[in-house]
Amino acid sequence: MRLVSRQILLWISTASSVSSYSYHWGVQRNLRVGRTLPFLVGKSRLGVPQGAGMTTLRMSSSTPESSSFRVALCQFRVTANKEENHQTARSFLSEAAGKGAQLAVLPEIWNSPYATTAFPEYAESMPEIGDTNSVGSPSSQVLMDAAREHNLWIVGGSTPERIVEDGEEKIYNTCLVLNPEGKVVAKHRKVHLFDINVPGGITFFESETLSPGRTLSHFSSPFGEIGVGICYDIRFAEYAMILRQKFNCNVLIFPGAFNMTTGPAHWELLQRARAIDNQCYVITASPARTVAPENPVGSKYPHYTAWGHSTVVSPWGDVIATTDETESLVIADVDLARVQEVRKGIPIGDQKRTDLYQLTESI
Amino acid sequence: MRLVSRQILLWISTASSVSSYSYHWGVQRNLRVGRTLPFLVGKSRLGVPQGAGMTTLRMSSSTPESSSFRVALCQFRVTANKEENHQTARSFLSEAAGKGAQLAVLPEIWNSPYATTAFPEYAESMPEIGDTNSVGSPSSQVLMDAAREHNLWIVGGSTPERIVEDGEEKIYNTCLVLNPEGKVVAKHRKVHLFDINVPGGITFFESETLSPGRTLSHFSSPFGEIGVGICYDIRFAEYAMILRQKFNCNVLIFPGAFNMTTGPAHWELLQRARAIDNQCYVITASPARTVAPENPVGSKYPHYTAWGHSTVVSPWGDVIATTDETESLVIADVDLARVQEVRKGIPIGDQKRTDLYQLTESI
Repeated sequence: MRLVSRQILLWISTASSVSSYSYHWGVQRNLRVGRTLPFLVGKSRLGVPQGAGMTTLRMSSSTPESSSFRVALCQFRVTANKEENHQTARSFLSEAAGKGAQLAVLPEIWNSPYATTAFPEYAESMPEIGDTNSVGSPSSQVLMDAAREHNLWIVGGSTPERIVEDGEEKIYNTCLVLNPEGKVVAKHRKVHLFDINVPGGITFFESETLSPGRTLSHFSSPFGEIGVGICYDIRFAEYAMILRQKFNCNVLIFPGAFNMTTGPAHWELLQRARAIDNQCYVITASPARTVAPENPVGSKYPHYTAWGHSTVVSPWGDVIATTDETESLVIADVDLARVQEVRKGIPIGDQKRTDLYQLTESI
Repeated sequence: MRLVSRQILLWISTASSVSSYSYHWGVQRNLRVGRTLPFLVGKSRLGVPQGAGMTTLRMSSSTPESSSFRVALCQFRVTANKEENHQTARSFLSEAAGKGAQLAVLPEIWNSPYATTAFPEYAESMPEIGDTNSVGSPSSQVLMDAAREHNLWIVGGSTPERIVEDGEEKIYNTCLVLNPEGKVVAKHRKVHLFDINVPGGITFFESETLSPGRTLSHFSSPFGEIGVGICYDIRFAEYAMILRQKFNCNVLIFPGAFNMTTGPAHWELLQRARAIDNQCYVITASPARTVAPENPVGSKYPHYTAWGHSTVVSPWGDVIATTDETESLVIADVDLARVQEVRKGIPIGDQKRTDLYQLTESI
């Protein structure tokens, strides 16, 4: 069993409308509790719930809409060993529940190396919306079981999905959302494939092996309407805006694995941009960073260095919880009343000039 | 004559694709030259050009498109004395030209207090696109004269405009753009009126006396296609996106007067968001901050405390030049090749999923 040193971040949102970003950052840093808590990992792997005093915050999907909920971002290291990744995910989800989380978010591509050549090898035949069990996808089954065991909503990061369409095999980068009954309530296939080439920075072409999704994805929950995208989807302002416009989302969740070029430059900026443009909470979960092997010759797949920094941003654009690149469980309380407060104060939703421009769905 | 202490900021863009925002900020601070240069004010008011060594950078509108240009942001204090504001504008524009600027940007509402009750009193009948002289607008004439005298493109911030439409008097918050012949090449009436009410923060309702504009504004220049909005327009991602989409703008300019609530929270964030979403330079010019009178009882208009911080952001989202709240002339070199470089590396313009969503013009 791999015992990791891990950060646990706890942040109770107290965002006020006149607070600056810097102020929040300072406070949040002070609230960081415990940089290395390996005993929690061990306990959670035995299924012992943590933080029993917080269970009054828990709710099932039948509970009326709540004004706040606790979210856990599971930023863990992903290896080439799928079963090990399953174990890590189970551990983090258990620990998230123990910390009183009602919704947990996993990273993008958490069961496989992030490499286009790895995707077909690790891909599984994933369940559809409405399914409660998975025959062809052990990784999806891990999430379904954890959702039921811990009475947890799970935005399941993403894993490579294999599907045969029109006689042709296709691979998608797919996110499942599970309710606490373990039922798939949303399935998002990454819509904007990560095809970029920044000289001296990062070159990656997901389209080498992946196909693009075709859905504007969201799900209804006791915490309101929640939009879902994956990583590069966050760069497209239209995608987040149409989720807000069509479904009245108050939370947008993007599992993502930014890199060492676009990560420091744009990861937090994009989240804060999507947050203030849509006056939504924006929540991201990244894999923890792993170090490239000194001698890559023997490696089966090229190494991808993730930026990390899983984050929760308020609808005012404040970072209310975040971490660095190491394995971390980021906990934050999301205050949905804040969404309404911000939208009432600066009512851009009602002030759009649809007589001049319009964002519309094409499908 | 009011001799002001003023900052001159000079920044030569060396943005590289892998540089972080923090890095740029540090460098730029080191390049700040001279915090108090009252002698420059005096000289510029006498029309003596400064920085003659830089004049090789100057160009007229007939010059073929250039790969770079120098911009000056004129962040000055606005008073209730219109003639004094005219003098200040002349001084800053002269100084901008002396520093080698080819394009100068003035702040929002630079000839009048920023107060809804002041707008009708200070409003003028402003010229139209194609006009080279102004009969009814002394403030516009200041800009036209300065453009010709200094061979300068001017994005003229904004001033209140009076117009009779359908027998009804209307007041607009209007920006004129002048070419170096002093001809009006664009006229933007603020499209999104600043009507917000943030409890404990800022309450302002421009719609008390202003009417909203109806144009997506841009102009063609030797520096490429340049989009124009005013202040609150920058909050609406659609507005900037459709300027980029329709006119292929590589620069977006927003004169603006953010306040002490939304300024620290959102001013820079919005500029950086518009920059990376559209892979454009984003340029803003604010009035310098003035202090509210200790005894406001005798004041004719309520005092508005501007945030300041006129800024230039690169298409990579880096702040490449900025200032604080004091009177400042911010100088930056805008490298248009950087726009193409960023768009080539991360080609979001070509990767939009118009089969799923579309942003279209309504008019």
